[in-house]
Amino acid sequence: MYLRSMETFNRRKIINDPVFGFIKIPFDIVFDLIEHPLFQRMRRIKQLGTTSFVYPGANHTRFQHALGAMHLMGNAIDTIRGKGHEISHEEAEAVTIAILLHDIGHGPFSHTLEKTIIQDVNHERISLMMMELLNREFSGKLTLAIKIFRDEYPKRFLHQLVSGQLDMDRLDYLRRDSFFTGVTEGTIGSDRIIKMLEVVDDRLVIEEKGIYSIEKFLVARRLMYWQVYLHKGVLAGDQLLIKMLQRARDLMASGKQLNAAPALEYFLGEEGREMNGNDTDNFILRFAELDDTDIISSAKIWSRNADVILRYLSKGFLDRRLFRIEISEEPFSKERIEEEKKKVSVKMSVSEPLTDYLVVTDTISNHAYSTIDDNINILGKDGVVKDIYEVSGILNVSVLSKKIDKYYLCFPKKI
Amino acid sequence: MYLRSMETFNRRKIINDPVFGFIKIPFDIVFDLIEHPLFQRMRRIKQLGTTSFVYPGANHTRFQHALGAMHLMGNAIDTIRGKGHEISHEEAEAVTIAILLHDIGHGPFSHTLEKTIIQDVNHERISLMMMELLNREFSGKLTLAIKIFRDEYPKRFLHQLVSGQLDMDRLDYLRRDSFFTGVTEGTIGSDRIIKMLEVVDDRLVIEEKGIYSIEKFLVARRLMYWQVYLHKGVLAGDQLLIKMLQRARDLMASGKQLNAAPALEYFLGEEGREMNGNDTDNFILRFAELDDTDIISSAKIWSRNADVILRYLSKGFLDRRLFRIEISEEPFSKERIEEEKKKVSVKMSVSEPLTDYLVVTDTISNHAYSTIDDNINILGKDGVVKDIYEVSGILNVSVLSKKIDKYYLCFPKKI
Amino acid sequence: MYLRSMETFNRRKIINDPVFGFIKIPFDIVFDLIEHPLFQRMRRIKQLGTTSFVYPGANHTRFQHALGAMHLMGNAIDTIRGKGHEISHEEAEAVTIAILLHDIGHGPFSHTLEKTIIQDVNHERISLMMMELLNREFSGKLTLAIKIFRDEYPKRFLHQLVSGQLDMDRLDYLRRDSFFTGVTEGTIGSDRIIKMLEVVDDRLVIEEKGIYSIEKFLVARRLMYWQVYLHKGVLAGDQLLIKMLQRARDLMASGKQLNAAPALEYFLGEEGREMNGNDTDNFILRFAELDDTDIISSAKIWSRNADVILRYLSKGFLDRRLFRIEISEEPFSKERIEEEKKKVSVKMSVSEPLTDYLVVTDTISNHAYSTIDDNINILGKDGVVKDIYEVSGILNVSVLSKKIDKYYLCFPKKI
Amino acid sequence: MYLRSMETFNRRKIINDPVFGFIKIPFDIVFDLIEHPLFQRMRRIKQLGTTSFVYPGANHTRFQHALGAMHLMGNAIDTIRGKGHEISHEEAEAVTIAILLHDIGHGPFSHTLEKTIIQDVNHERISLMMMELLNREFSGKLTLAIKIFRDEYPKRFLHQLVSGQLDMDRLDYLRRDSFFTGVTEGTIGSDRIIKMLEVVDDRLVIEEKGIYSIEKFLVARRLMYWQVYLHKGVLAGDQLLIKMLQRARDLMASGKQLNAAPALEYFLGEEGREMNGNDTDNFILRFAELDDTDIISSAKIWSRNADVILRYLSKGFLDRRLFRIEISEEPFSKERIEEEKKKVSVKMSVSEPLTDYLVVTDTISNHAYSTIDDNINILGKDGVVKDIYEVSGILNVSVLSKKIDKYYLCFPKKI
Repeated sequence: MYLRSMETFNRRKIINDPVFGFIKIPFDIVFDLIEHPLFQRMRRIKQLGTTSFVYPGANHTRFQHALGAMHLMGNAIDTIRGKGHEISHEEAEAVTIAILLHDIGHGPFSHTLEKTIIQDVNHERISLMMMELLNREFSGKLTLAIKIFRDEYPKRFLHQLVSGQLDMDRLDYLRRDSFFTGVTEGTIGSDRIIKMLEVVDDRLVIEEKGIYSIEKFLVARRLMYWQVYLHKGVLAGDQLLIKMLQRARDLMASGKQLNAAPALEYFLGEEGREMNGNDTDNFILRFAELDDTDIISSAKIWSRNADVILRYLSKGFLDRRLFRIEISEEPFSKERIEEEKKKVSVKMSVSEPLTDYLVVTDTISNHAYSTIDDNINILGKDGVVKDIYEVSGILNVSVLSKKIDKYYLCFPKKI
Repeated sequence: MYLRSMETFNRRKIINDPVFGFIKIPFDIVFDLIEHPLFQRMRRIKQLGTTSFVYPGANHTRFQHALGAMHLMGNAIDTIRGKGHEISHEEAEAVTIAILLHDIGHGPFSHTLEKTIIQDVNHERISLMMMELLNREFSGKLTLAIKIFRDEYPKRFLHQLVSGQLDMDRLDYLRRDSFFTGVTEGTIGSDRIIKMLEVVDDRLVIEEKGIYSIEKFLVARRLMYWQVYLHKGVLAGDQLLIKMLQRARDLMASGKQLNAAPALEYFLGEEGREMNGNDTDNFILRFAELDDTDIISSAKIWSRNADVILRYLSKGFLDRRLFRIEISEEPFSKERIEEEKKKVSVKMSVSEPLTDYLVVTDTISNHAYSTIDDNINILGKDGVVKDIYEVSGILNVSVLSKKIDKYYLCFPKKI
Repeated sequence: MYLRSMETFNRRKIINDPVFGFIKIPFDIVFDLIEHPLFQRMRRIKQLGTTSFVYPGANHTRFQHALGAMHLMGNAIDTIRGKGHEISHEEAEAVTIAILLHDIGHGPFSHTLEKTIIQDVNHERISLMMMELLNREFSGKLTLAIKIFRDEYPKRFLHQLVSGQLDMDRLDYLRRDSFFTGVTEGTIGSDRIIKMLEVVDDRLVIEEKGIYSIEKFLVARRLMYWQVYLHKGVLAGDQLLIKMLQRARDLMASGKQLNAAPALEYFLGEEGREMNGNDTDNFILRFAELDDTDIISSAKIWSRNADVILRYLSKGFLDRRLFRIEISEEPFSKERIEEEKKKVSVKMSVSEPLTDYLVVTDTISNHAYSTIDDNINILGKDGVVKDIYEVSGILNVSVLSKKIDKYYLCFPKKI
Repeated sequence: MYLRSMETFNRRKIINDPVFGFIKIPFDIVFDLIEHPLFQRMRRIKQLGTTSFVYPGANHTRFQHALGAMHLMGNAIDTIRGKGHEISHEEAEAVTIAILLHDIGHGPFSHTLEKTIIQDVNHERISLMMMELLNREFSGKLTLAIKIFRDEYPKRFLHQLVSGQLDMDRLDYLRRDSFFTGVTEGTIGSDRIIKMLEVVDDRLVIEEKGIYSIEKFLVARRLMYWQVYLHKGVLAGDQLLIKMLQRARDLMASGKQLNAAPALEYFLGEEGREMNGNDTDNFILRFAELDDTDIISSAKIWSRNADVILRYLSKGFLDRRLFRIEISEEPFSKERIEEEKKKVSVKMSVSEPLTDYLVVTDTISNHAYSTIDDNINILGKDGVVKDIYEVSGILNVSVLSKKIDKYYLCFPKKI
């Protein structure tokens, strides 16, 4: 159904993508998966959550990202095959499905709310559960895709194309996020990186002449982290959202009657907090009803609530009255935090315990290149495989692989 | 506040825009208007409504468009001043405000719902009412902007920059819509068109050497109309949405209890149907609470409703199960329509009168260049001003200025 | 050899192209042809001759254009095959060779000097002679390519891909010239046009939904004609060049000793004027020694010549002291021309007959879409093939197919 | 004259640039300098010499680069003024002239031939001499520009804008070379870097939030070095050119009669070898007659010479039969070199001493960021200025500031 009313109707299915131009749908089952409501739901989940507070162009969705990553996978398959490594039709289809669905488990405002709405389940696990659900619906046709996704398939490079230091997920999102935020400096040479892919002992490596592209990829990624993903305004927006949901949940827990979008209501209540081990399907189906609009429409309801805290946070979220934020290399002192809380308590006439919702301190950390993850391996002309840092020399691996911790303090700007 | 947490904090306010790069905020009052909740609301209204059903990249908002048009206005002011025409500081500020706010009156899924939610008021009128409301809040500082917007200011070219054949609104939206849909062929040379602007007798004209740019502009606009704005999939998506809201309203009118997003509920009920002449401020404030999320979250609620029609339409809207659509140069015969209705009646077990919600026929029409609107005037090297069609010759004005009517018929695809 | 030292050495041959990204060399023989000195010579012939006088970026060469057109041919072959039409490996190779070599017969400053250096032979004929020469060198492997080039092959659409209203030549040069001149408005949607290609009765047609792309193509081409190819500065530069060579030739004919670049010297003399029917190979080999540098280095020699006319023209060409040019819809009157000649005669102290080199009148004409050429045919959804003008309606075929004549007069600016 | 026949004739002077769009000419004297033959000559000198052997798009000229750098200078002046630092009209004009002319002293195939054609004078010195010559012609109006160029002006940041770690020269050439080679990964965020410029104690610094842009700049520069400027094919092409000229000079020195382009002939002879201290003006004027075409047209003459070495090198240069090149971290052993020479001696029937022209070993070295040059200083939010390496941490300064030496060996590919 889906694409038939697009560009080309029955014969050929092509999607216009501002980043990559024309994207072809390579397999029939991929077309059917895209049409599925679980996949269509991703149209209503922004890739970058609150980032559009800072970069107004960042309204692209997980739906677009999934299609983009699928497109790059096609190129990667062509390149690897072209270098003489076999990838069967089944494997190609499976690895394409795996990348298409890798993010299907994301909830609204993804990373921001991952720890708020459901507390014990990360999105990878939910993605997997959704794939299994789809697998039943598609009579087992996703079995190989799931195997690859779980890294249980011998040709491990297929898993690495889905999840690894240079997977199609990253190659797409870095380029796409750079494109839509307008932070053009963060763009990466996904085309060239893919052309440099090779396979040695069933693992992905990069041809030696690609090292400068990799260096640039690492530096561009770092730039995107600090300039976009961990931008002060984004952090401040995230905290507003997190605290708003906490306040709503706490009010409900304390017995207050509180309207919300129905899909969200369930997750704010007692039973929605944890995934019930006995009935994961019910959990998944309820979770699948959630998207960004539930958060926003709930905020709209709450912005008229009697509770001053909930009202303040909801209106701030809707009107983009972000917290003021300070960042520091050192943790903020208790005194400083207390001081801010007192100010807030006085100015907003709320009791001091309630200022926990308004004065927030937290840490951010970033590994631009984690040595714990699998490495980026470079294939030398002599056939020897080495880590990028050994080969490159220019990048300070000790810095890059070190966890950088920064501290921040958020509080109301003008009250 | 808004942009201070962006790029540059206090001193300089710059916004990243994927289309134009860095956008500067040129006046303090513009900054304050952008921060206003009425303006921030536009973050939640997509520029192209249901178009993302067909072009998944089309998630850009009216907020982005307003900033883009403001940016182009700055360039137009510079060009016109550079050619020796005076534009005072006050006029520059006013015309900038006018373009910034020209679309502020748009409701959710703008054009689609303009005739559904409120029936007698178009968005220009609401924009004007909102400007007047803001003018009171800003102690009369928008008076000149409103005068220009209403075309009551002697330097009429200022109004034409806001609303005319080559206004900054069109220059931005054609370029922006082309950018985000990925229909790169629709892009226009906004830079060069602006450089060709001149003023004769207080009216905008284009320097003669710009005629090829204008020809290209007209053809690109036509391409965007047929390939994007009037795309079959977009029309089919729009009808789904329109019919869903009609069904909801009719159910409510017939006394059925129906939940919806609170902001929408008002407009579905009796009193929201027409703007109450006596209390326009109340109307405006209620209208200003509406945005795209209200439609979507209502659809989510309705997708579980007992009414089969409402459920069908809502689920179709959420899961992108669009109507099948046929387009014809001739009106569809009564027989054909009845035939489709009968099929639907049988397959979906609904009474024939109810099939009015499911089998829809309507017309589309497009003037690519309407001779009723003000013309595009070309300033010859001899100083004589002529209409583009006289000068160009290549474009068939009789075709372009003729209203083209096409007919379409929508009905459920597979039932 | 050539590309082996590029990106990828032996295994895979890829060329970086600023317009299309990575270009692959699809066949071994294509690689060998690219390496041939006759092809390498095109590195020294600019695509747009004197256009860089006006657009300083227009330094791209026929070498680049030939590779770009070859790249598009690959896409066209894929599209046509994908729609179920057979193109055998041999045919694909041959049509690729034909497009690669279609311009190989261009001399220095191509179109400008086509009628000056050799008088009776156009570049298509020389291209063909060079292909035949190469065919002997490559043991007959170019026979099919030549057949297609000469339109003597039954699948006539293959010839149309090389030479027709929508051939790969045009699709590349319009896009490439737009790119390098920086006249971004002239860009065309070559990707989409190629995707719309179909074959009916062995002839190329365009699918109906591509009509807006074709309209845009025609208007963009028109824009490029008037804004680039027939730009006043380009015409003025061309006349400088033409007159310089005429003066040099006339001086030589009158017995004056005149140095020039050796390759050019031959063509300025008696025997080089016409192609000797008996020894075309000698002619071709001599012609193949000519490139842009011969013209420029001769101008450098002549800029110190005793002859005031030759010196004036040569220095003007080197230092970009172009003629002043006036354009008119009417022919310039004899009186006007005489008047300019008299002025020049006095100011430069040259006898009146010599002012023929300095005061030049000529015409320009352009058919944006010639009905004499083969048409652009549109394949309707009903299977009927019609000309674009019947289908589109918007474009004024009577204007577009009419030969537009303009007159211009060139003379020294300040003397 | 120059631009009047372009886009806009008298009133406004605008140049189309594929990289930056429209470039304005900001001062009248700049317009006159651009029209000067010394500046127009740069149209005939490619920015990247033999690089187009490897990247066919790299045909852009020093003329384009000079205009681009001038354009960026305008932006830098605006930014610095906007941050409250005074730059007078005279200073703005002077620093613009200085950047416009900074490369005017480049000879044909710039860097490649710098040490071949003239041996003791680098291009900066010749640029300065040409500026002084122009200064006399322009009645002293370039005096301040020359002062800034020589770093003799108190506001030293003006010199740094012309020549320093982040001067407009580099910002333009890195971006432009990346654009025309098609090595898109090498692109830098010149816009954002310029927006981050600040001045402290009359020296340029970068605002702290610009560090990621600087990191990216450094890595992109490194990528351009290894992927473009020191690409194997480029080195091999350069050696061909160098050896060809050496052979020609040596033949002339040994008394052989040898034609060449007249402008080059002088520099190949005895007197042209060194700049005569007593008559620098004569030297400069002769040097100013040289451009790329003299090298190419001489090669064309020599490709028919009786000398086998000269013929081999010239034909190789024209037909792109590059040397085979090997690169090594270690110097090549005498044995290896002798072995290659012997092979060449046998195969080409030349005496062993002559193989010095055909078997070449040399070193390449690159400091991506030299600590000897002035540093890139970062202005912290606390007002303290630090070097980028202290602040960034990610980049390995010890690696980057270390001179990397590589060795290469060139010899004929197939003989």
